Amino acid sequence: MLTHTSHRVIEWGDCDPAGIVFNPNFFSFFNQCTTELCELAGWRNQDLGEHGFVGCPLVQLRAEFKASCTYGDKITIATGVVEVRRSSFDIEHRLSLGQNLCVSAYETRVWCVRDAATGKIRSDRLPEDLAARLRGEAPEARADKR
Amino acid sequence: MLTHTSHRVIEWGDCDPAGIVFNPNFFSFFNQCTTELCELAGWRNQDLGEHGFVGCPLVQLRAEFKASCTYGDKITIATGVVEVRRSSFDIEHRLSLGQNLCVSAYETRVWCVRDAATGKIRSDRLPEDLAARLRGEAPEARADKR
Amino acid sequence: MLTHTSHRVIEWGDCDPAGIVFNPNFFSFFNQCTTELCELAGWRNQDLGEHGFVGCPLVQLRAEFKASCTYGDKITIATGVVEVRRSSFDIEHRLSLGQNLCVSAYETRVWCVRDAATGKIRSDRLPEDLAARLRGEAPEARADKR
Amino acid sequence: MLTHTSHRVIEWGDCDPAGIVFNPNFFSFFNQCTTELCELAGWRNQDLGEHGFVGCPLVQLRAEFKASCTYGDKITIATGVVEVRRSSFDIEHRLSLGQNLCVSAYETRVWCVRDAATGKIRSDRLPEDLAARLRGEAPEARADKR
Repeated sequence: MLTHTSHRVIEWGDCDPAGIVFNPNFFSFFNQCTTELCELAGWRNQDLGEHGFVGCPLVQLRAEFKASCTYGDKITIATGVVEVRRSSFDIEHRLSLGQNLCVSAYETRVWCVRDAATGKIRSDRLPEDLAARLRGEAPEARADKR
Repeated sequence: MLTHTSHRVIEWGDCDPAGIVFNPNFFSFFNQCTTELCELAGWRNQDLGEHGFVGCPLVQLRAEFKASCTYGDKITIATGVVEVRRSSFDIEHRLSLGQNLCVSAYETRVWCVRDAATGKIRSDRLPEDLAARLRGEAPEARADKR
Repeated sequence: MLTHTSHRVIEWGDCDPAGIVFNPNFFSFFNQCTTELCELAGWRNQDLGEHGFVGCPLVQLRAEFKASCTYGDKITIATGVVEVRRSSFDIEHRLSLGQNLCVSAYETRVWCVRDAATGKIRSDRLPEDLAARLRGEAPEARADKR
Repeated sequence: MLTHTSHRVIEWGDCDPAGIVFNPNFFSFFNQCTTELCELAGWRNQDLGEHGFVGCPLVQLRAEFKASCTYGDKITIATGVVEVRRSSFDIEHRLSLGQNLCVSAYETRVWCVRDAATGKIRSDRLPEDLAARLRGEAPEARADKR
């Protein structure tokens, strides 16, 4: 399965008056990790609109918060595909500070297109090449795209 | 069980280039709803530090996204206590646009204090009056506090 | 000149570890005020793309910070058009807590369209009806639009 | 005068429905740059509370927006001290994409302490060593602090 690791330093503006990361900001971090993972799989948010593709919306999310993070913390986020189905896939994020796991999250995203006939948005089968890269069965795509 | 309803208009800055609410922002909305619910139960974030209380951190979160929201949408969020235990409690948020449920979220929060002896943060029994108000067994507290 | 007043309660997530509003968030508030003022003048961000209109980007901003705001503060923002020129206009925001002015900001925005011939974005003359409403010489437009 | 350069990639969540960076986010970027510059000068936001120091609030800000930035843009921000006075100093930020200047900002910050006698916050003379480092007359301090 495709994986991606990213690094980040917690900014002053990420934190709330309790001095710790305001929890919605963790989901901004994870959203960026998913975006980067999907780029490795060969598509980008910029491709919105091409071939009727309208995005890969989040439909389910679970998270566990085990330890807080604070200003200046140098965190690591390990992101990986967990399962790829016909038209949806699951991604897991594990945010750590050194050896300590602080937050884990599990998300399900669905591949959506605009139906050419009806104009409505509906889920659709993942393109074969994308699915293969998400499963780690084809090489990463970063080089072709940027 | 204690409940709270709030209203909000989606702002331009809440939305991303797909033209819909950037999903982490839903958790900012829910965080504010929880804050307001807890004020109804008689404590406030401002009380941090009093009696060793250090906050009520989120430990688990689940969410389902059923429909997107966009700039100008007038949404309603129904927030309610679902369960109150010895030192933790669960809250549910249901964000709707008219009759349509767009996002639901379920969170678990833990009552935490700083141990006077060790200086460490640990969970503690919820104060009786707070627990009673969260359960809806005592009148709301807004009037006393603001 | 057209004016607009809005009210807001400072949220926990608006504040930073110093316990005060993280200053970039004031510009989110002001951005929303400008959006609402422009709706009163008869156009909306949703109109992007119509008639080649591509938005009204901010080109200059000045702000003075006189007092901080904190969680729970019930603030008022008085927004008003200051000057309307051929293709640009100036807006002032005054954010107060009770009688105390906390932050003032002054912004210049330019009316931009996509040139049908070249495809490039360029400034253009403000539509007459919009300019008249911004100057307060024509009735507000809210009723027609929402 | 002390200078600092930082790099950043524009994230999906930094952008609004027009597909460009939501302008308040530029001030979040600049705020982080100022924080990093001040760390080079030898103090950190974590030091809040030490020796009565309560922060270095922004009192004036001016910005010019010349070009927009969009998702995926790899920007550079050049930050530098422009003037150091008795109890305040000015910082300039220049945000560029390649050779193109997109946004410039100029901010004035004031050194504030809590008066031990009255408990009130007031401006105070910048510590000598900090002022010398801001002026570039003493070596950077990063090594001692992190």
